[in-house]
Amino acid sequence: MPGGVIMTDVNVLERLERIIRSDEGVPPERAAELSVLLDEPPIQDVVALVERSSATRAAVVLRLLSRRRAIEVFDALDAAHQADLIDALGDNSVYEFFAELDPDDRVSLLDELPAEIAERLMRTLDDTERDITGVVLGYPKGSVGRRMSPEVPHIYEDLTVDEALEKLRRVANEAETIYTLPIISRDRLLVGVVSLRDLFTAEGSTGLVELMSKPVFANAHDDEEETARWFLPLDMLAMPVVDDSERLVGMLTFDDAVDIVEEADSEDTARSGAHEPLQQPYLSTPLVKIVKSRIVWLLVLAVSALLTVQVLDTFEDTLAAAVVLSLFIPLLTGTGGNTGNQAATTVTRALALGDVRPRDVVSVAWREIRVGMLLGAVLGSIGFLLATVVYGLNIGIVIGSTLLMVCTFSATVGGVMPIIAKKVGADPAVFSNPFISTLSDATGLIIYFLIAKSVMGL
Amino acid sequence: MPGGVIMTDVNVLERLERIIRSDEGVPPERAAELSVLLDEPPIQDVVALVERSSATRAAVVLRLLSRRRAIEVFDALDAAHQADLIDALGDNSVYEFFAELDPDDRVSLLDELPAEIAERLMRTLDDTERDITGVVLGYPKGSVGRRMSPEVPHIYEDLTVDEALEKLRRVANEAETIYTLPIISRDRLLVGVVSLRDLFTAEGSTGLVELMSKPVFANAHDDEEETARWFLPLDMLAMPVVDDSERLVGMLTFDDAVDIVEEADSEDTARSGAHEPLQQPYLSTPLVKIVKSRIVWLLVLAVSALLTVQVLDTFEDTLAAAVVLSLFIPLLTGTGGNTGNQAATTVTRALALGDVRPRDVVSVAWREIRVGMLLGAVLGSIGFLLATVVYGLNIGIVIGSTLLMVCTFSATVGGVMPIIAKKVGADPAVFSNPFISTLSDATGLIIYFLIAKSVMGL
Repeated sequence: MPGGVIMTDVNVLERLERIIRSDEGVPPERAAELSVLLDEPPIQDVVALVERSSATRAAVVLRLLSRRRAIEVFDALDAAHQADLIDALGDNSVYEFFAELDPDDRVSLLDELPAEIAERLMRTLDDTERDITGVVLGYPKGSVGRRMSPEVPHIYEDLTVDEALEKLRRVANEAETIYTLPIISRDRLLVGVVSLRDLFTAEGSTGLVELMSKPVFANAHDDEEETARWFLPLDMLAMPVVDDSERLVGMLTFDDAVDIVEEADSEDTARSGAHEPLQQPYLSTPLVKIVKSRIVWLLVLAVSALLTVQVLDTFEDTLAAAVVLSLFIPLLTGTGGNTGNQAATTVTRALALGDVRPRDVVSVAWREIRVGMLLGAVLGSIGFLLATVVYGLNIGIVIGSTLLMVCTFSATVGGVMPIIAKKVGADPAVFSNPFISTLSDATGLIIYFLIAKSVMGL
Repeated sequence: MPGGVIMTDVNVLERLERIIRSDEGVPPERAAELSVLLDEPPIQDVVALVERSSATRAAVVLRLLSRRRAIEVFDALDAAHQADLIDALGDNSVYEFFAELDPDDRVSLLDELPAEIAERLMRTLDDTERDITGVVLGYPKGSVGRRMSPEVPHIYEDLTVDEALEKLRRVANEAETIYTLPIISRDRLLVGVVSLRDLFTAEGSTGLVELMSKPVFANAHDDEEETARWFLPLDMLAMPVVDDSERLVGMLTFDDAVDIVEEADSEDTARSGAHEPLQQPYLSTPLVKIVKSRIVWLLVLAVSALLTVQVLDTFEDTLAAAVVLSLFIPLLTGTGGNTGNQAATTVTRALALGDVRPRDVVSVAWREIRVGMLLGAVLGSIGFLLATVVYGLNIGIVIGSTLLMVCTFSATVGGVMPIIAKKVGADPAVFSNPFISTLSDATGLIIYFLIAKSVMGL
């Protein structure tokens, strides 16, 4: 177990979990015992424990923790979970947690809360803090401006290393990050960045302009996911964020970028599995919420699948004349669906990572046509042989050529659909598994019966 | 476009891309022009350009960049892509890039290279560097030890703040991170951590023991993915890694954790889409590699789908007696597959994030049984009504009750399979989409025909 060697006694966590999960709640005489127990395990284990528990039980754990530890744990939760906890905690502790959050995390939390509670919480902040949260709130949802930290030390380009270090020492406690420092002109234009490491090893009398390098930066209106995806692989701790007139307005730190990518990936995974993301850990999500996250998708997909009933209805005479054809329906639609999903998940992931851009649509289509034909040739040959041996030459020809055509068609459609989805502003992940399957089912059946009719002369 | 306001001229990138992608290669007289062009765009755009290009073309770009920029770009690529580039670059530049990499990144790269090339590269390093890479190499693949950075400053617990800062200044250039500092006893046991920020704002004469806090840390033998998943949400820059006798052996930095999670997520996405991960950007992957990453899965799934042919073959008489039954085959198997995939993707993701552990299997099964029944009740009622209106009461009853049972069955199996996979050491993502669909296809058909036979008296 991670971190387990020095500090964790696994039994402590097991005992804790049993006490907290038991339906009787925590009797006052055990609270003291629990409080001591909770101080032992490493912070990440307490976070995991809280995430697995329902909001009420998580609130019990939080109240039993020491104040500093409770804030650390609360801070590590995602905004949706924090919002649930706020419901469960008493007002006083809520204000405490809220005031201790970094402004950008506070904004994420406010987004999740009902307007009325959000307003009450905002009133508890002092003026400066409210202003800072306000600056962050000025940018649209999904923009870098909503995720950046506005608490940036102002380091001017005309300072020396010693002057800059002196200034930093004074403001170090308020800034979210002091390890990557944006350098600005006196009118707040971003002119460079310098790392604390560089400041730290340089001569004290050196001017900052000599040390600083060209900044990597983002605009506050940039899309948060796109920005986080290119920023993270650069392995930097933070980067400056500027407004449209190139003035410094904040910093985007790596941990915010990690959160953004994590949320986006959870969303993609959920959509490609034909449901909405849960926003909170599975075991602590109420049953009704899980059903809601799935039912709409299932209904839409079932209604689209009525198309296959229609197609088969059209070919009912062919089916009645050769019932043997119906034996292969699930095999053929399944293979088409799998081929389409392979292409779709690959391209969806490539789009998310920026490896493929919407204008690459033609190269993607051309690649997938060839890949699909190769796959179809292999599967089709095997299908031809097997079906011929068991059901005769005619069926063999029908199965073999259907597999070839279905694979080519599905791979192409599967590769192109996510790009089209992105172009029209929909989530590409929606077009990986669920819809591709339904679409290729219906098309595959049409291909199948047209080939069967002509080969078998029905 | 990110970072586009101050420095990027989009046309520069477009022009570059056109020159590089053109099949004629780069004529010497244009190299100088390109070299200047490449110095303009922000580093992340050059990285993206290199990732989208084939290895040969990426090598051209790298050779045209200034030395410092080239190393930055090479560093930002993943190990698989670096290995491809090494093939394409001349020996001299390779040694240069290799020597500049951090030891942990070097290890990832060595893993990707053919043994012969890896050995030749290792010989280019001086003794100290080879030792460091050797320490990292001593741990098994997939362990934290392979990803950590062994270049850690030794800060002893008996130092004062000023002494520690002085020491740091001397070693700052070699260490991968100096912002999170592990504090060790004279025999290298890990006793605490302190941040540079804290050192920086403290009184110079303070002893480190007064400043340091309880460390969050990992063991070098811990699983890399598990460790990275709990480490990242803690929003820390780095954490100490210890050996089995609790001695400090390295640091795991956030950017290594980001890489680990990114690789794991790409693998999960690929497997749940029924193929192997590509390890390199889609557009620069050779066609044959793409086909290889998919064909084995397709074959295995097609062979499993022969089960559905078997099932239908068994019920051929029933089908012949009521051809209308075959119309609903794709609808029913599709809905079962969708329900199973919903449960499977949710649970697979929850397993990856640590929200669900293998021993939660009973709670997961119980949740999914109820969710499946609720979903089945809704879909079944609608199916009953529609089918009754169009095809009569008997068919309505068959379709309605089949949907109820198939949804319950598929959700339960879909939720439990990933957990079983994890227990037997397989990749849970494998059991999301592909196999669940095939399994629920066959079972769904059996349920369907058994119900049909008893209701319709066939």
